[in-house]
Amino acid sequence: MDVKNTEFLLEKINSPDDLRKLSPDELPEVCNDLRNYIIDILSANPGHLGASLGVVELTVALHYVYNTPYDLLIWDVGHQAYGHKILTCRRDKFITNRKFKGISGFPKREESEYDAFGVGHSSTSISAALGMEIASKLKKENDRKIIAIIGDGAMTGGMAFEALNNVGAQKSDILVILNDNNMAIDPIIGGFSQYLLNISKSQSYNRFKKSIWEGLGKLDGFGLRTRKFIQKNQHALKNIMLKENNLFEAFDFRYFGPIDGHDVVYLTNVLNDMKAISGPKLLHLITTKGKGFEKAEIYQTKYHAPGVFDKITGEIFPCDCSVGKTSKFQDVFGETLVELAMLNEKIVGITPAMPSGSSMNIMIEKMPDRAFDVGIAEQHAVTFSAGLATQGMVPFCNIYSTFMQRAYDQIIHDVALQKLHVVFCLDRGGLVGEDGPTHHGVFDLAYMRSIPNMIVSAPMDEIELRNLMYTAQLDEIKQPFSIRYPRGYGIKPDWKQPFEKIEIGTGRKLKEGTDVAILTIGKSGIFAQRAVKSLEQKGISAAHYDMRFVKPLDENILLEVIEKFDIIVTVEDGVLHGGFGSAILEFIALNNYAKSVKILGVPDKFIEHGTLDDLYRECKIDTKGIVDSVIKLIGKL
Amino acid sequence: MDVKNTEFLLEKINSPDDLRKLSPDELPEVCNDLRNYIIDILSANPGHLGASLGVVELTVALHYVYNTPYDLLIWDVGHQAYGHKILTCRRDKFITNRKFKGISGFPKREESEYDAFGVGHSSTSISAALGMEIASKLKKENDRKIIAIIGDGAMTGGMAFEALNNVGAQKSDILVILNDNNMAIDPIIGGFSQYLLNISKSQSYNRFKKSIWEGLGKLDGFGLRTRKFIQKNQHALKNIMLKENNLFEAFDFRYFGPIDGHDVVYLTNVLNDMKAISGPKLLHLITTKGKGFEKAEIYQTKYHAPGVFDKITGEIFPCDCSVGKTSKFQDVFGETLVELAMLNEKIVGITPAMPSGSSMNIMIEKMPDRAFDVGIAEQHAVTFSAGLATQGMVPFCNIYSTFMQRAYDQIIHDVALQKLHVVFCLDRGGLVGEDGPTHHGVFDLAYMRSIPNMIVSAPMDEIELRNLMYTAQLDEIKQPFSIRYPRGYGIKPDWKQPFEKIEIGTGRKLKEGTDVAILTIGKSGIFAQRAVKSLEQKGISAAHYDMRFVKPLDENILLEVIEKFDIIVTVEDGVLHGGFGSAILEFIALNNYAKSVKILGVPDKFIEHGTLDDLYRECKIDTKGIVDSVIKLIGKL
Repeated sequence: MDVKNTEFLLEKINSPDDLRKLSPDELPEVCNDLRNYIIDILSANPGHLGASLGVVELTVALHYVYNTPYDLLIWDVGHQAYGHKILTCRRDKFITNRKFKGISGFPKREESEYDAFGVGHSSTSISAALGMEIASKLKKENDRKIIAIIGDGAMTGGMAFEALNNVGAQKSDILVILNDNNMAIDPIIGGFSQYLLNISKSQSYNRFKKSIWEGLGKLDGFGLRTRKFIQKNQHALKNIMLKENNLFEAFDFRYFGPIDGHDVVYLTNVLNDMKAISGPKLLHLITTKGKGFEKAEIYQTKYHAPGVFDKITGEIFPCDCSVGKTSKFQDVFGETLVELAMLNEKIVGITPAMPSGSSMNIMIEKMPDRAFDVGIAEQHAVTFSAGLATQGMVPFCNIYSTFMQRAYDQIIHDVALQKLHVVFCLDRGGLVGEDGPTHHGVFDLAYMRSIPNMIVSAPMDEIELRNLMYTAQLDEIKQPFSIRYPRGYGIKPDWKQPFEKIEIGTGRKLKEGTDVAILTIGKSGIFAQRAVKSLEQKGISAAHYDMRFVKPLDENILLEVIEKFDIIVTVEDGVLHGGFGSAILEFIALNNYAKSVKILGVPDKFIEHGTLDDLYRECKIDTKGIVDSVIKLIGKL
Repeated sequence: MDVKNTEFLLEKINSPDDLRKLSPDELPEVCNDLRNYIIDILSANPGHLGASLGVVELTVALHYVYNTPYDLLIWDVGHQAYGHKILTCRRDKFITNRKFKGISGFPKREESEYDAFGVGHSSTSISAALGMEIASKLKKENDRKIIAIIGDGAMTGGMAFEALNNVGAQKSDILVILNDNNMAIDPIIGGFSQYLLNISKSQSYNRFKKSIWEGLGKLDGFGLRTRKFIQKNQHALKNIMLKENNLFEAFDFRYFGPIDGHDVVYLTNVLNDMKAISGPKLLHLITTKGKGFEKAEIYQTKYHAPGVFDKITGEIFPCDCSVGKTSKFQDVFGETLVELAMLNEKIVGITPAMPSGSSMNIMIEKMPDRAFDVGIAEQHAVTFSAGLATQGMVPFCNIYSTFMQRAYDQIIHDVALQKLHVVFCLDRGGLVGEDGPTHHGVFDLAYMRSIPNMIVSAPMDEIELRNLMYTAQLDEIKQPFSIRYPRGYGIKPDWKQPFEKIEIGTGRKLKEGTDVAILTIGKSGIFAQRAVKSLEQKGISAAHYDMRFVKPLDENILLEVIEKFDIIVTVEDGVLHGGFGSAILEFIALNNYAKSVKILGVPDKFIEHGTLDDLYRECKIDTKGIVDSVIKLIGKL
C-alpha cells in the first residue's frame, strides 16, 4: 500500500473522531487499509505482526463505538495495539515504532491520551480496568465505559483470575473482551485453553456460526449482501447465546459469545448492544493470529515478531547479526540443556509459555516427558519447580529476567527458604533493546543477590554459560543457582566445547594491569575487554577480572584487588542500586577497608527503548563509557 | 484435657502408623482428643487456633487413609497444620510451637519428613503438588498419592488458578481438597466465594446433607447408629453429586462435593474411594473455622490467632505489651488513614484480605465506598491501585512487607514505570517474630530501593508514620511512595498530633556527637537512641541520625557525616545485601569518597522464628548489638 495514495480511507483518519464520521459500511475498507498499512510498515521495521493483524477489526470497532479517549481501552500485553496507535494520531509516527526516541511498541501513557494504561507484561488489564471504573464512579463520571481487551494466553496468568474474582465481587461495570486465538507466542497450554476450545466447538457456537456464515454467503470480501444481512440483525446480542454455568459466570460475569472477531460491522453492533448492559460482562471473540496475511496465519509462532520480511510473499529475511558465525545465547542454553539432560536423568525443563523464545522447545521436542510449558504462569512455574526439586529432580526453570519479577516471592518462599536445588536460567538479562522499559531485565542481579541461599552468576560468553549450566546441575550443589545471560547473539562461534566445572564463587583474571582494576559481571566483560585494549593504547594499564558470581563473591580476587589497586571500577548491565557494584562495596565495608570504587551500571531511572548500542551508550556501560570513566578517574589521582 | 491421662486415645498415637492401627469407629474419639489438645496448648501458647480446629477431622482422615509420609500431603498456608504436626511425631514438642528454637508454626521440610512442603504464604500447594506428582512419575513411583489441601481463601490467589490450569493440561493424578469455610483471616471477598456459597446452598447439597444428617439422627456425638449408617454406605462417592459444567471442570478437574468436612468416618470413606480415581480431581469440603470451640466458631476473625485465652470460657486475655499506653503501628495507620481520607477525597484504601491485620477495617467501616478488600490477591491489589491512580485517586495500598513480594513486578511495571501516585504502606516490615522466616519482612528496603521513581521511607515512631502518610498524599507528590513500618506496638502514647509535612529526602539529627555517627532507618532508630545513651555512659560520644528515607537519601546529612566522622555505623531491620546500608555505601562511592562504614542489619541467611527480642539479638541489631559494634570499631582506631 502506498500511504501517499489518497484513495485510501485510512489516509483520512487522523483520530477516532474521523473514524466515527464514517458509515458502518465503510468500516471493512478501513480494516483492509489498516491491515495493509501494518504489513507494509512492519515488513521493513520489525515488530509484533501476528497479534496486531488479529485485532484489526476489533480495534476499528472499538474506536468506532466507544468515545475514546474519554472511554478507556486497556490493551493487555499491548503488542497487539499497533492498529490502535495508527488510528489514534500516530499513523505517520508509526514508522518510528520501537526505534530509539521513536514511539513505543506498547501502549504508553505519556505517549498518548488514548493509551489508558501502559502495558508490556501480561494479565494486568482487568485489574487496571477495575481501578479505573471505581475511580470514575467516585468521581461521578458514571457514563464512562471501561473495556479491557485480553488474550486467551494472558487470561491464564494468575492475576487475571484475581481480577475477575474481584470485579465479580464489586459488581463493577466493565467489559472484558476475551480475544481468543488459542495462541500466545507459542500455542497455549492448559486446561483453560481446552475449555475455551470446547466452547468454540460447541453446538451453540457452530449453530451461531452457521447462521452468520450462511448470511455472509461465504463471500471473501464484504459486499452488499453482507450489509443487508447485518441490517436485518440490528440487535446483535440476539445472536449470541448466553451460556449458563459458564466459567466466567462463576465469577459473576455475564458471558457472551463466542463470536467471530473478524466481522467488523457485526462487532460494532454487538459492542453497541453491550453498552446497555451494566455490571461485569465478558465478550468472547474468536480471532486468528496473523489474520489476512497468509503465512502469518499458517506459521503463527514464526510470524509473532518475524523481523524484516517481504510484504508480498511473506519471506523472512535473516537479520545481519546472525550472519553465519555465532549463536544466540538462548540457543546455547537450549542445546546445552539437552546435552546435560542426556547425561543427568534428574534434569527437567520448565518454561512459562516461552518455548521458542527460550529455546526450551529443543528439549520439549526431544524429551517431551521431561520438559514442560506451563502457560503464562511464572509464579506457578517456580513453585512447580520447587515441588519437582523436593523429589530429587533438578529443574532448569527458564524465565526471562523481566518476567521472573513475577515470581520473586516464590523464589524466596518456595525455593530459597527450603534450599531446594532449582536452577534459574534468566534469559534476556540486562537491557533488551527495542522492547523497552517494560522488558529490560535490569533488576535481577539486585533482587537475586538479597535472597539467602541463592547462588547468583552471570556468564560473560557462551562457553561460560555452558560451564555454569554444567556446574549448576552437579549433585554437589545443594541450593538454588541462578544464571543470567543476555538477549541476542554471543561472540564465540566454537562454543560447543567439553564441559568444565567452575568452582562456586570464583572469577577469572583476564588481564594483569597496574593502574586500575576493572571488575565485571556477565556480558559487560566483553566491553571491558575492548576498553582495556583501548586504554592500553592510551598508556593506561588496566587489569580485568570477570567475576562470574555476584554471590558468593570471589574473596581472593577481591582481596588481591583491594591490596594492589587504588582505582577500582565495577561494570554491570543492571541497576546500580543494590546490584553487583553494590555487592563489591559491601564486601569492602564488611572487611573494614576504606576504598574508593567507581560503580558503573544502569542508573536509577527507567531506560527507554532503542537498539542495544543506543542503550548501552546512554547508560555509559559500553566500551567508550568504561574508557571515559577510567580516564576521568586516573586524571583525578 | 490432662495430657498425662492415658485414657485418651491421642496419647497412644505417636505417628500415623499408630493411628492406622485403630478401627474407624475410634476416629471420632481421636478427633475429640486432638481438638481438646490443640485448645489446651494454644490457650497458654498463642497460635493459629481457628484454622486448625476446622481441619481436625480432615487431618485424622488423611493420615488414616493415606500412607504418609510416602504419600505426600501439602498444606496450603500451613497455619492449619497443628493437628498434622501433633499426629506426626510432634505431640510432645507441640508445647514449643512458634517459640525460639522450638517447632515452627508452619509445616517445614527440615522439621519432619511428614512436612512435604514448607509453607506460610498462600496458594502454593497445587503448584508444588504438581511438581511432586510429575517427579514421582519420572521416578516410576506411580503408586504415590499427592494431596494438596487448600482453603477457599487461598484458592482466590492467582497462582492457585495458574496451577489448576496446568494440572488440567498435564492430566496429573493429584487430589486437591478445597477446605471451604468461607473465611480467610477475615471473611472472604470475591465472585468466586459467592460461587462456592451458591454451590453449597444448592439443592443437591441440601439433599445430600439431608440424607446424611437424617442418617446421623442428629446425634451430637458419634454412636452406634452412626457407625451402622456408615456401614450401609460403603461407597461414599455415591453420595456425592458430580456437577457438570462446574468451574473446576473447566480446568479439566473432576469435581466432587460439597461434603461435610466434620464427619471423619465418612471422610475416610470418601478419601478411600478417591484413591481409585485417576487424573485431576477436586474434593470440596464444607467446614467451620474454629469448629468445636464455641467462641471460635462465632467470632472467627478474633479467634484466628487469639493470643492467650481461657480454654473453658474462651475469654481472651490482653497481652502484656498492650497494657494501656501505646498503640499498634497498624492502628496508627488505620486511624490516620481515615483522618486523611476525610481531608482528601482522592484517598482510597486497598487491602488484599487483611482488613483486620492492617486495621484497614476502620476505613472499610467508616467509608465503605472508598476502601476495598480485594481478596488474597496482592498482584491484583497493586495493579488495581495503579488503575485508580491513573484517574486521579490517591490509593493507599496496604500489604504486609512479606506479601508485597508477590506484587514486586506490578510495583515496577504498573506503578513505578508509569510514575503513578500510589502510596504503598508496608505493614510488618522487618523481623516479625513468631511467624518466622516465611513472614519476616526483611527484603523490602532492598527491593523497593532498586525501583526507579520510588520514594522509599520508614518511620522511627508513630508520629513519623503519621507525618509520612500525610506527606505521601499531598498533591505535590507525583510518584509512588512507600512507607514501611514494623509489626507490633509503638512507643508514643500521645501519637495523635497535628500533621506536619516532611520534606522528601530529609532525615533528622537526633543527637550530636563526636566519636561516631550512627545512621538508622525506621524502628532501628529506637535501639540506636538507647545505644547512644549507653555509649555516653562509657565515655563514647555518638551522633545519631534518623534518615527516614532510603531513597532519596538526605545528602546534606551524609556530606556532614562524611566530613565530620571517621567511624560511621548504619543500622536497619532488613537484609544487609542491597539494603539501607548498601545505599549509604553507594552514595559514598558515587561521590568518590573512601570511607569505612560498618553496616548492621539482617545477615544473608533466613532468620528463624522467636520473639522479636530473640531475633534482634540474633542479628545483633538490638541496643546491645549496636553498642558492641561501636565499641569494637572505636577499639580498632
